[in-house]
Amino acid sequence: MKHTIIREKPGIKLQNPILIEGLPGLGSVGKIVVSYLIRQLKAKIFARLYSPFFPYHVLVNKNGSVRLLRGNFYYWKNDAPNGNDIILLTGDSQAQTIEGQYDIANEILTFATDHSVKTIFTIGGYSAPSHEAEPRVVGVATNSKLLKKLTATGVSVSPAGNPIVGTAGLLVGLAKFKHIEAACLLGETVGYIPDPKAARSVVKALLPVLGLKVDLHDLNIEVEKTGRVLEKMRAVEKKIELYEEERRKAEKERMTYIS
Amino acid sequence: MKHTIIREKPGIKLQNPILIEGLPGLGSVGKIVVSYLIRQLKAKIFARLYSPFFPYHVLVNKNGSVRLLRGNFYYWKNDAPNGNDIILLTGDSQAQTIEGQYDIANEILTFATDHSVKTIFTIGGYSAPSHEAEPRVVGVATNSKLLKKLTATGVSVSPAGNPIVGTAGLLVGLAKFKHIEAACLLGETVGYIPDPKAARSVVKALLPVLGLKVDLHDLNIEVEKTGRVLEKMRAVEKKIELYEEERRKAEKERMTYIS
Amino acid sequence: MKHTIIREKPGIKLQNPILIEGLPGLGSVGKIVVSYLIRQLKAKIFARLYSPFFPYHVLVNKNGSVRLLRGNFYYWKNDAPNGNDIILLTGDSQAQTIEGQYDIANEILTFATDHSVKTIFTIGGYSAPSHEAEPRVVGVATNSKLLKKLTATGVSVSPAGNPIVGTAGLLVGLAKFKHIEAACLLGETVGYIPDPKAARSVVKALLPVLGLKVDLHDLNIEVEKTGRVLEKMRAVEKKIELYEEERRKAEKERMTYIS
Amino acid sequence: MKHTIIREKPGIKLQNPILIEGLPGLGSVGKIVVSYLIRQLKAKIFARLYSPFFPYHVLVNKNGSVRLLRGNFYYWKNDAPNGNDIILLTGDSQAQTIEGQYDIANEILTFATDHSVKTIFTIGGYSAPSHEAEPRVVGVATNSKLLKKLTATGVSVSPAGNPIVGTAGLLVGLAKFKHIEAACLLGETVGYIPDPKAARSVVKALLPVLGLKVDLHDLNIEVEKTGRVLEKMRAVEKKIELYEEERRKAEKERMTYIS
Repeated sequence: MKHTIIREKPGIKLQNPILIEGLPGLGSVGKIVVSYLIRQLKAKIFARLYSPFFPYHVLVNKNGSVRLLRGNFYYWKNDAPNGNDIILLTGDSQAQTIEGQYDIANEILTFATDHSVKTIFTIGGYSAPSHEAEPRVVGVATNSKLLKKLTATGVSVSPAGNPIVGTAGLLVGLAKFKHIEAACLLGETVGYIPDPKAARSVVKALLPVLGLKVDLHDLNIEVEKTGRVLEKMRAVEKKIELYEEERRKAEKERMTYIS
Repeated sequence: MKHTIIREKPGIKLQNPILIEGLPGLGSVGKIVVSYLIRQLKAKIFARLYSPFFPYHVLVNKNGSVRLLRGNFYYWKNDAPNGNDIILLTGDSQAQTIEGQYDIANEILTFATDHSVKTIFTIGGYSAPSHEAEPRVVGVATNSKLLKKLTATGVSVSPAGNPIVGTAGLLVGLAKFKHIEAACLLGETVGYIPDPKAARSVVKALLPVLGLKVDLHDLNIEVEKTGRVLEKMRAVEKKIELYEEERRKAEKERMTYIS
Repeated sequence: MKHTIIREKPGIKLQNPILIEGLPGLGSVGKIVVSYLIRQLKAKIFARLYSPFFPYHVLVNKNGSVRLLRGNFYYWKNDAPNGNDIILLTGDSQAQTIEGQYDIANEILTFATDHSVKTIFTIGGYSAPSHEAEPRVVGVATNSKLLKKLTATGVSVSPAGNPIVGTAGLLVGLAKFKHIEAACLLGETVGYIPDPKAARSVVKALLPVLGLKVDLHDLNIEVEKTGRVLEKMRAVEKKIELYEEERRKAEKERMTYIS
Repeated sequence: MKHTIIREKPGIKLQNPILIEGLPGLGSVGKIVVSYLIRQLKAKIFARLYSPFFPYHVLVNKNGSVRLLRGNFYYWKNDAPNGNDIILLTGDSQAQTIEGQYDIANEILTFATDHSVKTIFTIGGYSAPSHEAEPRVVGVATNSKLLKKLTATGVSVSPAGNPIVGTAGLLVGLAKFKHIEAACLLGETVGYIPDPKAARSVVKALLPVLGLKVDLHDLNIEVEKTGRVLEKMRAVEKKIELYEEERRKAEKERMTYIS
């Protein structure tokens, strides 16, 4: 393999497909969102993307088999007449070099064009200080009509100047060269652990845009679990701070004895 | 997009065009100069340069739309008979790798050749300690006739051995392979914030060479604003130094108590 | 040389060949295993791999001659009727870039295909804390039948999620694109010095899978030597720790005098 | 310029040419040697090498003109019947990436082949602790006959395992693919400043191999100058050490007062 390649199952015909991309990134928001939709929609494997721009290691599976890092395209057939079928893309990694990032985004768009995709949604996270309430979702789009569809479901327009890094950004930026409309949804996250709460906010905003309903029960459970983990982490952090404080006091005290 | 590409508006014919380049760099001198000329000359968009060697993020616009990093070519029509039309190039970024730097400079020169450009001016900053008076401008050129035109308007000849980094340098170095004459003007700058004062010096030196007059009022305002900001920064820096000094004294004092 | 190339001795025909790869890596386990098999089997030089992705230096030989970094393929003819001939690959270095890693793995697989290789074993080390007993060997394989052959000789199945870095991993991951079955054996090693003990564990596990017998005497000697070196290193480390301890005590004592 | 290119003066025919390469490197030994031979032999410019793998800046000349980084080939015509003409290569820089190093070495060898070069000498420095006497020269060669020619003039055979980094190494390693014999001479140098003394040792060893006589007067002057500079540097270093020593003593003394 010397170039990025996409190997697809032959014979799959989709109707007005929409592509939704979510690769690993800040707070794993994109990957959690797309993986959740794949599970809930029982989407089926469609194609796999391999690239010499992914890290040069392989992953061991549960049964002792082994595989390259890859991107996975899934598809979901919409039963509604004239409804949009959905292609879902997630994977193990993003490209490791600048040229690789552009190369992989390009291959994804060629794949999208080959399957007559007219709309792309990319998902990611954006860094924001810790919060208690529901994380916000900000969005951008290649045209104002698409952006309005997002804001109608509670998405805020992203502030100007904000850079959107990686595949989620490049796909939207490059889409117009292929005459594909595209939007990016970013969930607010503290970012240092996988953040299902940010992902849930994105899912809630995205579903009405897609005209879909998906059970959120399992995602809610994930949010609660992570919430408890985060609570414990914060408790430990506070404890550490307290000890630091006490240590500093003790040192000050010792200093008075010395003098 | 796998290579650097330039997409131009069709049907634009220019007369004896001169290309002026100023991309982001030290003190943003090049970008400020070219952006100012674009605004004052009311130059119109001509072409856009996209490259897989730019950073792999996109930028969010004010209206929630999104775009790739790019270079922008503008053009200005000279009403004078046999006068030089002007192509102005600025943009968001320089290439991120060595090969990218050469690749983009090459594409710019191919574009220049396609439009019969015979002369190129590139603009940048060079680092020099803080100064109160007017920043100097140093220059180099591919031939002595062009260099004399610069020195006649107050530009100093750059000292030998001085390396000129990035697109501003490579364009001049590569121009001779395309039989284009080229010069580079570098404004003296402290470099750590955008420096309109250095840019103004370059504009003042460049205008007579181009036989152009441009109102400097808005640039003067920028210079004053930045001057006030710099003054405040220097005041704060002095304050910090003072506190450091006091802290050091206090530590010395404590030391005498300990012994 | 602008691409990875393999130069082979012409006219060598092999029967049902198996490829065993062991390049430099953690604890040099792969290189030690394959080099030992080459010596013991008296394997002959078959082909050499050169690559612009290796480090850009050359190596001086004993007689003052000089050579590029390279990979070396050796072959061993199996006298048994319908037995497997063996191709052994080791070398000076792995590729220095991501693209280089994929490129070299690809060239090795093309070579394997050209010689009708149906099975590949790759050898490496995996990092584990210091141990006294025999180092463990973990393995993965592209199919469960091959994996069972490994576990039957004492190899443990690698835990899921374990990344296998470099050529040993990529060859196994890329093999299925060429319809070649492949397995990777990793010897447990502390990793910071060449580790013949880990290599011996791998050799012991690999030989019955290959249906081969090889004298282990010289390897046993290496293990003993390294054992003694490691013992001395540990003794010195303990001494250093002791001195550190004493120094800390002395400092504490001085502190009591100060106060 | 997207690839490494060599632009040569047309119509130059050489007789049995030998190529001598010395690019910037440790102690600038290679560059000093080749530059000195160019000056003394009054060699003429032959060709220039440009590459997108050189650093992306240009250099300002004394007259305010500007040029790309480049390699320069010179030639010298040997008046002796059947004597060897000489091609001398030096330049501003080596390639900045692994692939660039292999690419440039390759282009040099293609150039050498085009001009029927049968022998190449590459020059560099090797790091060794400071010395008072004459620096040693070590060498390697692609065949023992060529190596003997070197050892006959006082060159020591390089110890085995010694890596020779960069163009000087790669040219020798890659030469055999082009059926060119090659040798590398490395002068012993402390390395942190340009070292004409190491260069002189290499020149003295190389001249008899080439059957040439060259006046060493100017090089001797350089050696003396550098010697005086080095003496002063060592004096300053000793002074600094002394002050450090005194400071440490003073600190110890203060400590006794504190306790």
